[in-house]
Amino acid sequence: MPTTRLEAFSDGVLAIVITIMVLELRVPTGDDLAALRHSTGSGLLTYLISFVFIGIYWNNHHHMFQVTEQVTGATLWANLHLLFWLSLLPFTTAWVDTTGFARTPVTSYGVNLLAAGLAYVVLQRVIIRFQGPDSALRRAVGRDTKAKASLLLYVLGIGVCGVLGHVAAPGAIVVAMICFVTAPLLWLVPDRRITRVVAERPAGG
Amino acid sequence: MPTTRLEAFSDGVLAIVITIMVLELRVPTGDDLAALRHSTGSGLLTYLISFVFIGIYWNNHHHMFQVTEQVTGATLWANLHLLFWLSLLPFTTAWVDTTGFARTPVTSYGVNLLAAGLAYVVLQRVIIRFQGPDSALRRAVGRDTKAKASLLLYVLGIGVCGVLGHVAAPGAIVVAMICFVTAPLLWLVPDRRITRVVAERPAGG
Amino acid sequence: MPTTRLEAFSDGVLAIVITIMVLELRVPTGDDLAALRHSTGSGLLTYLISFVFIGIYWNNHHHMFQVTEQVTGATLWANLHLLFWLSLLPFTTAWVDTTGFARTPVTSYGVNLLAAGLAYVVLQRVIIRFQGPDSALRRAVGRDTKAKASLLLYVLGIGVCGVLGHVAAPGAIVVAMICFVTAPLLWLVPDRRITRVVAERPAGG
Amino acid sequence: MPTTRLEAFSDGVLAIVITIMVLELRVPTGDDLAALRHSTGSGLLTYLISFVFIGIYWNNHHHMFQVTEQVTGATLWANLHLLFWLSLLPFTTAWVDTTGFARTPVTSYGVNLLAAGLAYVVLQRVIIRFQGPDSALRRAVGRDTKAKASLLLYVLGIGVCGVLGHVAAPGAIVVAMICFVTAPLLWLVPDRRITRVVAERPAGG
Repeated sequence: MPTTRLEAFSDGVLAIVITIMVLELRVPTGDDLAALRHSTGSGLLTYLISFVFIGIYWNNHHHMFQVTEQVTGATLWANLHLLFWLSLLPFTTAWVDTTGFARTPVTSYGVNLLAAGLAYVVLQRVIIRFQGPDSALRRAVGRDTKAKASLLLYVLGIGVCGVLGHVAAPGAIVVAMICFVTAPLLWLVPDRRITRVVAERPAGG
Repeated sequence: MPTTRLEAFSDGVLAIVITIMVLELRVPTGDDLAALRHSTGSGLLTYLISFVFIGIYWNNHHHMFQVTEQVTGATLWANLHLLFWLSLLPFTTAWVDTTGFARTPVTSYGVNLLAAGLAYVVLQRVIIRFQGPDSALRRAVGRDTKAKASLLLYVLGIGVCGVLGHVAAPGAIVVAMICFVTAPLLWLVPDRRITRVVAERPAGG
Repeated sequence: MPTTRLEAFSDGVLAIVITIMVLELRVPTGDDLAALRHSTGSGLLTYLISFVFIGIYWNNHHHMFQVTEQVTGATLWANLHLLFWLSLLPFTTAWVDTTGFARTPVTSYGVNLLAAGLAYVVLQRVIIRFQGPDSALRRAVGRDTKAKASLLLYVLGIGVCGVLGHVAAPGAIVVAMICFVTAPLLWLVPDRRITRVVAERPAGG
Repeated sequence: MPTTRLEAFSDGVLAIVITIMVLELRVPTGDDLAALRHSTGSGLLTYLISFVFIGIYWNNHHHMFQVTEQVTGATLWANLHLLFWLSLLPFTTAWVDTTGFARTPVTSYGVNLLAAGLAYVVLQRVIIRFQGPDSALRRAVGRDTKAKASLLLYVLGIGVCGVLGHVAAPGAIVVAMICFVTAPLLWLVPDRRITRVVAERPAGG
C-alpha cells in the first residue's frame, strides 16, 4: 500500500495535538504583564515545549517517509502506537506544570518521552524489515547513534529522578529535566543522512 | 469520482475523534501515583480503548479503500453514516466510565458498537454493488465470517446485558463487556485477503 | 492554481466542525435512559442535525469541485466565506436548544442557514465566471431550481418566525423549523447533474 | 523533498486554529438579541477577526507554495515557526476582548501580529535562498513593499500603544488598533505577482 493515507492521518493527529493546547491556555484575569506571567506563564512555556517536541517528531517522521514507499498492516499499527504516546504528551506536561515539577510527574513525563522514543525506533525497524536487505531507510539511518543516545538520556533521567529523588529531590529533578530536554534537541536538525539518500536517488536510479 | 476526498475527510474526522479525548483527561490534583490512579485511572483506560478501537476502524477503512477506486453519492453517505457512529464512541465510553459500568450505559455502549459495525457492513455492500459482478472488494471479503461473528458478539452482549441485567447485573455486565472487547479484536489484524488482492493486482493487470 | 489545497483545507475545517460538538455533549449524571434523555436528549438531536447538515454541504462541495479544475484568489475567499457560516452552525443550533426553540434563536438559526446557502451560491458563481462561456459547472447546475427553492424556504421561515412570531409564537416557530429542515433535505441527494457531467467527460474527451 | 506534507500539515493546523474558537463562543443565557449582544457580542467579533486573519495567511501561504517545489529541513522549521505564532492568536485576541481593549493586552496582540509577520518573511527568505539565483518566488515577490509596510505598521502600533499609552491610553489604543487591522488588510488580495508567475510558467516551460 502507498504511504499517502498513513502520512495524511499522522499529519491530522499531530496537527491536532500541537494546537489543542491553546484551548488550555488560561486568559489572564488582570490586564498587565504580571497577570499574564502569573496565570499563563508556565502554560505558555508548556505550549512552546510541546510545540517544539511534536514539531521535531513530525519533522523526522516526514523525513523517514521520504525513503519509505510501501506500508503494511504492521507499519500502520507501529505508527498508531507512536501517535498514541505523542498524543499523551500534553497531558503529562500539564501534570508537571500544575504540580510545580514534583518528582512523580517529572518521572511520568520521562516515561512518556521514553515510550515515544521507543515507538519511533520500533516503527523504523518495522519499515526496515519490510524493505528487506537493501533498505533505503537502513542505509540512511546507519548505526543510529542519535536514537541510542536519546533513549539512554531518557532512561538516565527517569532513573535519577525515580531513585535519587527520594533522597535529594530538587537536584535529581533538575538533572532529570536536563536529560529530557537535551534528548529531543539532538533531533532538532532532522536526519541529514536521509536528505543525502533522497538526493542520491534521482542520480542513482 | 476518485476516492481521495472521501479518504481525506475520513482521516480528518477519525484523527479528531482519536485525539479529542486527551482534552477530557483530568490532570491529577495530587502529585503521586495514587492521585494519578484516582483521578485519571479510568480516563486513561478509556482513552486507550477508544484509541485502539478507532485505530482498528481506520486501519480496515484504509485497507477497504485500497481495492476501491471510484465512489458515488451513495458511498459518500454510507461513509458519513459510519463516521457518525464512530464519533459518538467517546461519549458512550465516557458514560460507561462515570457510572462505573452500570447496566444501561454498558448496553448503550454495545448499541453504539453494533451500529458502527452495521454501518461498516453497509458501506462495504454499497461499494461492492457499485463495483458490479467482478468486484475486487467482494473477492477480498469472501464470505465475510469476521464481520458476521463480530455483529453476533455485539447482539449477544446487548441481549445479555439488557435482559439478564435485570436479574443478575454484575455477571451479565462482565459477559457483555467481554463480548464487546472481543469483537473488535477480531479485526486487529486487518484483512489479509485485501493485502493479497492488492498484491495480486500489479501482477494480474 | 489546482484545487487540491482548497479541498484539503475545506475537508479539515468541515471535519472539525462536524466532530467538535461531541465535546459539548454532556455525559448523563444518572445511569438510566431517563437521565440520558434528560441531560443529553436535545444535545444528541442537535448533534445529529449538525452532522447531517454539514454532511450535505461537504457532499455537494465535493461534487462541485469534481467539475472545477482551477481556482483563483477569488475562489479561495468565496470558499472561506462559506466555511465561516458553516462553522457558526454549532453555535446557533446550541442557542436554539438551550432556549427551547425561542423566537429569536430560531430566527438567528434561519439567518445562519440562509447565509450559508447564499455563500454556496456565490462560490458557485465565482467558479462559473472563472470557467468562462463553456463552464462545465454551469452546464451541470443548469437553472439551479434547487438552490433557488431552498433560499426561498429560508427567507420564508425567517419571515414567518421574525414577523408573525410576535403575534402567535408557537405556530410560527413550528412553520419556520419545517422550512429550515426541508430546505437542506432537498440537497440530500447530491447533484445527479454533476455526476452526469463527470461521467460524460471521459467519453467526450 | 516535495511540498505535499508541509502543505497538508499547515492546512491541518490552520483549519484547527480557525475553527477552534467556536468552542469558546458562549451560548447566550437569554433568548433575545440583547442577550446575544451582551454575552457573545465581542466573542463573535473576535471570531470574525481571527477567521479573516488566519484566512489571509492561509491564502498567501497557499500562493507562496504555488511557486515552491522543493522543501528542506530548514523550510519545515521556518514553517512550524510561523504556525506557532498563528496558533497563539486566538489566545491574545481573547485577552484583548476580556479586558476591554486594555493597554498591555493590545500591545501583546501587536507583538503577536508582528511575530507572525516576521515569521512569514523568514519563511519566504528561507525558500528564496534554497531556490538559488533564479528563484521563482523572488521574482514573484519583487521588492516586497507590502511586507515591509505591514511590519512597519505593526511596529508603529506597538510603539504608540506601549509608550504613549502611559500618558493618553484611549487615543493611543485606538491608533494602535487601526495600525493592527490595516496591516493584514493590505494582504487581503493575495499576491497577484505570484498568480502572474504561475500563469507564465506553462507558457515559458
